[in-house]
Amino acid sequence: MSILLTAAALAAAPPAKPLTPSDIVARAPASAWRTIPAEDLLVIDLYPTGRTVIQLAPQFAPVHVANIRALADAGYWTGSSVYRVQDNYVVQWGTNEGGKPFPKAVVKRPPAEYDRPLHGLKVRPLGYPDAYAPQVGHALGWPVAWNPRTGRANLTHCYGYVGVGRDMAPDTGTGGELYAVIGHAPRHLDRNIAVVGRVVDGIEQLSALTRGTEALGFYKEGSIARRILNIRLASQLPAGQQPSFQVMSETSPSFAAYVRARANRKDDFFQVPAGGVDLCNAPVPIRRTPAR
Amino acid sequence: MSILLTAAALAAAPPAKPLTPSDIVARAPASAWRTIPAEDLLVIDLYPTGRTVIQLAPQFAPVHVANIRALADAGYWTGSSVYRVQDNYVVQWGTNEGGKPFPKAVVKRPPAEYDRPLHGLKVRPLGYPDAYAPQVGHALGWPVAWNPRTGRANLTHCYGYVGVGRDMAPDTGTGGELYAVIGHAPRHLDRNIAVVGRVVDGIEQLSALTRGTEALGFYKEGSIARRILNIRLASQLPAGQQPSFQVMSETSPSFAAYVRARANRKDDFFQVPAGGVDLCNAPVPIRRTPAR
Repeated sequence: MSILLTAAALAAAPPAKPLTPSDIVARAPASAWRTIPAEDLLVIDLYPTGRTVIQLAPQFAPVHVANIRALADAGYWTGSSVYRVQDNYVVQWGTNEGGKPFPKAVVKRPPAEYDRPLHGLKVRPLGYPDAYAPQVGHALGWPVAWNPRTGRANLTHCYGYVGVGRDMAPDTGTGGELYAVIGHAPRHLDRNIAVVGRVVDGIEQLSALTRGTEALGFYKEGSIARRILNIRLASQLPAGQQPSFQVMSETSPSFAAYVRARANRKDDFFQVPAGGVDLCNAPVPIRRTPAR
Repeated sequence: MSILLTAAALAAAPPAKPLTPSDIVARAPASAWRTIPAEDLLVIDLYPTGRTVIQLAPQFAPVHVANIRALADAGYWTGSSVYRVQDNYVVQWGTNEGGKPFPKAVVKRPPAEYDRPLHGLKVRPLGYPDAYAPQVGHALGWPVAWNPRTGRANLTHCYGYVGVGRDMAPDTGTGGELYAVIGHAPRHLDRNIAVVGRVVDGIEQLSALTRGTEALGFYKEGSIARRILNIRLASQLPAGQQPSFQVMSETSPSFAAYVRARANRKDDFFQVPAGGVDLCNAPVPIRRTPAR
């Protein structure tokens, strides 16, 4: 068993070998972690087996997240499919606008929740430059980009992040069709699409699917990448079977140590520390905890 | 058929609808393209079918590339395998250091070709900030990072880029074990590993493989992700069957227009142009030409 060090101990007595980012995550105290509410976890069960779990971000896209919860609650996605797999870009799923009627609670034309006011967010700057935004860092356990001039902040399209498929403007998509990023962060989509969450478990159920052969990675008419058994909120599952995850708080000393270590890899393998890290290359640590 | 516009015409008469990056690539004149020499193309044939083609970068890692050519020439990889698939990171292949003897021409302890002198490289700055290096841009058809202070330049670990698997320092790897990036650019590996090329075709043969279940995505002992039929240089293939590709020159007006369009997407789908682009999110355009 590895000894649990307090953040103070970490700072006061650096060990002979620098800690790796994984070491830091493994040793982070309980106080560094926040449990994700069960109603923020979307559980995708694939046919015949395979599960992907997504954490929703109501703090950034409340109307879209409410739609997604209403769709899950109504069993809207039962029997739907993964129908688009584009290499180095996205995997997309849903009914492919198959005309299935929405439950009443769904807002058919949500507002463009592409960004939100910076006001009210306590942001932690990453401390390294970004090609897409004047400022990047973390808030509420999420990677964010912001512009002090416009006073707006947005979730960023990092690997595994989930957005709402939409048609051309001014449509913003309902949440019925979702996609997850499976390649290099397509940050040009930031502020153009509602980002509603991130995959916290089982991304490989989506990222390793055979790429679609049609334009934009769509599957041929009448063919799909994967059948979806159902998509439910963790809170809909029976007690004792609800998957549970925790997110490392960006206000914890562990998180600061983690980012520093990601930016300055010094374990045996590395000859030269980078001296910097890209926002999407310092993924917020997330860990599984026993089902509740 | 789309009309071919000269760069001058593009500049003089912007069309009513802004050109997309794909439009610009499709309309680039012949003068914008450089043909890749056949001895710079490494052709991986997988069992039972499937082909991945890699462009080698002798300008950045000459000793490692010479090793790879010698290994291909000797049929070293025939019957080897893909044995590691780590999600959002790398796919790795070779003999897994299976003890197969190297051909004589292979340099067993190559120098650490992790970077090279900036001197002699005509670099084109990207024009947007980078989290890992003081300067990034392109040279000789490749994405590079450089540091004017140290006078060193390196190839960057972008999606699809290929590096040399190695043990701990001071080993630099021979080239017998190679990997390709299949996730968000792991730029912290820059200057710590010899980057020797990039996948120019068939990345999906590697990126869609089932992820390995062991630590670091390795496959369990005795199990593999994919059998490799053989790995040859295009120049070893019979005339008329040698795959051929062209790279867009970073000195061409088309390339400048392409980067500008990647950084400022204005096609119908986009509401807000990013105003910037990450080095790895502006992949150097490459196109297939008839076999030679």
